[in-house]
Amino acid sequence: MEKLTSIHNQHVKNWKKLQTKKYRRQTGTYLLDGWHLVNEAIQGGIHILQLVGTEEQLTAHPDLREDADDVYEVTEEVMQHITDTVTPQGIVAVVPLPNSHEVPDMDTLKGGWLFLDRVQDPGNVGTMIRTADAAGFTGVVVSQRSADIYSPKVVRSMQGSQFHVRLYEGDLSKWVNDFKQINAPVYGTQLNPQAKSFRDVNPGETFALIMGNEGQGMSEQLLKQTTDNLYIPMQGRAESLNVAVSAGILMFQLNKNL
Amino acid sequence: MEKLTSIHNQHVKNWKKLQTKKYRRQTGTYLLDGWHLVNEAIQGGIHILQLVGTEEQLTAHPDLREDADDVYEVTEEVMQHITDTVTPQGIVAVVPLPNSHEVPDMDTLKGGWLFLDRVQDPGNVGTMIRTADAAGFTGVVVSQRSADIYSPKVVRSMQGSQFHVRLYEGDLSKWVNDFKQINAPVYGTQLNPQAKSFRDVNPGETFALIMGNEGQGMSEQLLKQTTDNLYIPMQGRAESLNVAVSAGILMFQLNKNL
Repeated sequence: MEKLTSIHNQHVKNWKKLQTKKYRRQTGTYLLDGWHLVNEAIQGGIHILQLVGTEEQLTAHPDLREDADDVYEVTEEVMQHITDTVTPQGIVAVVPLPNSHEVPDMDTLKGGWLFLDRVQDPGNVGTMIRTADAAGFTGVVVSQRSADIYSPKVVRSMQGSQFHVRLYEGDLSKWVNDFKQINAPVYGTQLNPQAKSFRDVNPGETFALIMGNEGQGMSEQLLKQTTDNLYIPMQGRAESLNVAVSAGILMFQLNKNL
Repeated sequence: MEKLTSIHNQHVKNWKKLQTKKYRRQTGTYLLDGWHLVNEAIQGGIHILQLVGTEEQLTAHPDLREDADDVYEVTEEVMQHITDTVTPQGIVAVVPLPNSHEVPDMDTLKGGWLFLDRVQDPGNVGTMIRTADAAGFTGVVVSQRSADIYSPKVVRSMQGSQFHVRLYEGDLSKWVNDFKQINAPVYGTQLNPQAKSFRDVNPGETFALIMGNEGQGMSEQLLKQTTDNLYIPMQGRAESLNVAVSAGILMFQLNKNL
């Protein structure tokens, strides 16, 4: 086991660079920060390429070393440098970046799906993926120009839900067409004269819900493709709901038949 | 109209100090940052003590000056110093801090109420107040050791809902007792053997919902006082939902009779 004490060490520099999307793509890896995520990965049978811990954490959990290809001990200063958290727990793991660009077999789409159309806040993206998991959804598809699903902030907000739901990145317009081909409804979310109250729809076993950009909502093109558009009746004078709160309200209404 | 160009000016120092709870209490004022909040305050008939803007913003909206006791023009550097936002819009207003410690007349409690028990993240507190507004709730009561409801981050997340719902700070245990005296149910949120699915309760016109601390949940004492405890059935493997998402799901279920 190597001990690394300098932030100028090449390994340390590389772990730091995993905060960028470019380097995650180049290396096909991303970083899990903290015990909850590392344990979720081990329980999920995820291959751990590198395990990095402080002396305190590695000493307290000697068994962990068997779960990783390589183990590195670092100082707390180095750990602080690698992660973007204020008080790191002292354990991180480098794991393979899943291939989220493949196009799944249409026979495997059964269940609820969440489509995110250019949702930009990483906390919102992560929280919605976590909520989709809790609502028993099958998967989440994220459009281009959304927050990157394996960025540190999204990973922190997902809290391990990437190991429970299927995650894809892709062209939502194509996904909507695929759903329509198998007669699965796709619900948009935009208030317009034809929109239905979210309480008045009763989807079957396979459907998709689209949530749009925080400021601009869904794209016009996607709106035209949807089966129905849903709205949440607002009784107060608030003009809108936070997108992650809206998604939670809608998913826990639509999941009744899952 | 005074023009202020230095961050060492006493007015500027005082506005900056409004980021602290202590100074907000001492002066009985707080800060609204940005056009949306300033406009909401004006429409709501809120007395504007001081209006502070950049030259660009004050020139573009000359009518605004009539709505404020005092108007100050500041440089963009000064504006950046006063607010804690990354890209301020160039307009802030100092307004009176409402008295949130009074005990309301029990005859005026009709409607849905949200009680926040030591919720610490300002974004969560603000988002839940905004959601309560959208759900048509009457008011929100925040316990001690919660995020301060007039802190910049809570004010930003509330998006003006403090002008639409009644906001109180107080001892939740006393509030729960008051609700029980008028036979209004108080719902806790904690998974225990007696908890009910949130879909199985049907409150009347007056009720309260308690949301607890992000990590620890509700206090034991409050749990003992509740009429029922609710849970959201999780179908996936996520262990919990974000507290603001949970609150949204629950409020938009409980508000059906409001």
